[in-house]
Amino acid sequence: MNSTLSELSQTPAAPLRYLDDLQVGDRFSSAGFLLDETQIKAFALQFDPQPFHLDHEAAKETLFGGLAASGWHTAAVTMRLLVGGGLPLAGGIIGAGGEISWPQPTRPGDILQVETEVVSVTPSRSRPERGLVVVRSTTQNQHGHVLQLSVYKLVVPRKAQ
Amino acid sequence: MNSTLSELSQTPAAPLRYLDDLQVGDRFSSAGFLLDETQIKAFALQFDPQPFHLDHEAAKETLFGGLAASGWHTAAVTMRLLVGGGLPLAGGIIGAGGEISWPQPTRPGDILQVETEVVSVTPSRSRPERGLVVVRSTTQNQHGHVLQLSVYKLVVPRKAQ
Repeated sequence: MNSTLSELSQTPAAPLRYLDDLQVGDRFSSAGFLLDETQIKAFALQFDPQPFHLDHEAAKETLFGGLAASGWHTAAVTMRLLVGGGLPLAGGIIGAGGEISWPQPTRPGDILQVETEVVSVTPSRSRPERGLVVVRSTTQNQHGHVLQLSVYKLVVPRKAQ
Repeated sequence: MNSTLSELSQTPAAPLRYLDDLQVGDRFSSAGFLLDETQIKAFALQFDPQPFHLDHEAAKETLFGGLAASGWHTAAVTMRLLVGGGLPLAGGIIGAGGEISWPQPTRPGDILQVETEVVSVTPSRSRPERGLVVVRSTTQNQHGHVLQLSVYKLVVPRKAQ
């Protein structure tokens, strides 16, 4: 499986932001990513081998009512979209942690897309070369259904003084 | 890559717990899982293609100081260990969301193992057949370094009345 085949569009190369470039309320949009049944089952086999992520028939009898992607697969694809231009940070996307929720299951054929907003920007007191940026990302499908809400604490470098 | 090859031991089959069987403070232990460089790079290529997850030399120049697994890879392996006997829940492990942090990077050669504790058990008021269980999981390596702390809200079925 080559996930790049699923990327429906490239985010135009955006200038990479340092901490100093970011303001609360700044917003960024990712490209789209088509998640198909083959990918959903492959991820599940490897990391989350439960019937509702592996088998249509078995999934019908569960809370999901049909085949659904592992939440960790949705999270991983969200990261892929952020790294692929959806969140253009200098130094890359380095998370210290965060919160995550999956309001609705991701289904085969869903096209995932991520909108991200800057929530806070905090220069480090002890480390003049970097700081902490909190962002809130919403992963939705082509129908506007919210599949994942996440808040990340990211380590972002400052411009050289 | 067949991740089952990395599972160093099988958790003995434990009886599956319903919500009614769980008490605050109950603890569960997973098997171990060896994460090697090949797996780390393969996951990163697919979901988190950043230099510190892909290349030893490039990683030296970054905050990580050397090759490190994507946090989402650590999260996915943690899920694999929970599903593989580390958290024996009736109905499977169905998460509505949670919190996650990565105090230290996961390195090639790390053997991941997960300890999980029940934090709260709340029968649903509107749904007599299920409830919400909050658990706290600690993923550590063979040196006792904590690689991931996570708190999950899980939907757990009740025994048939």
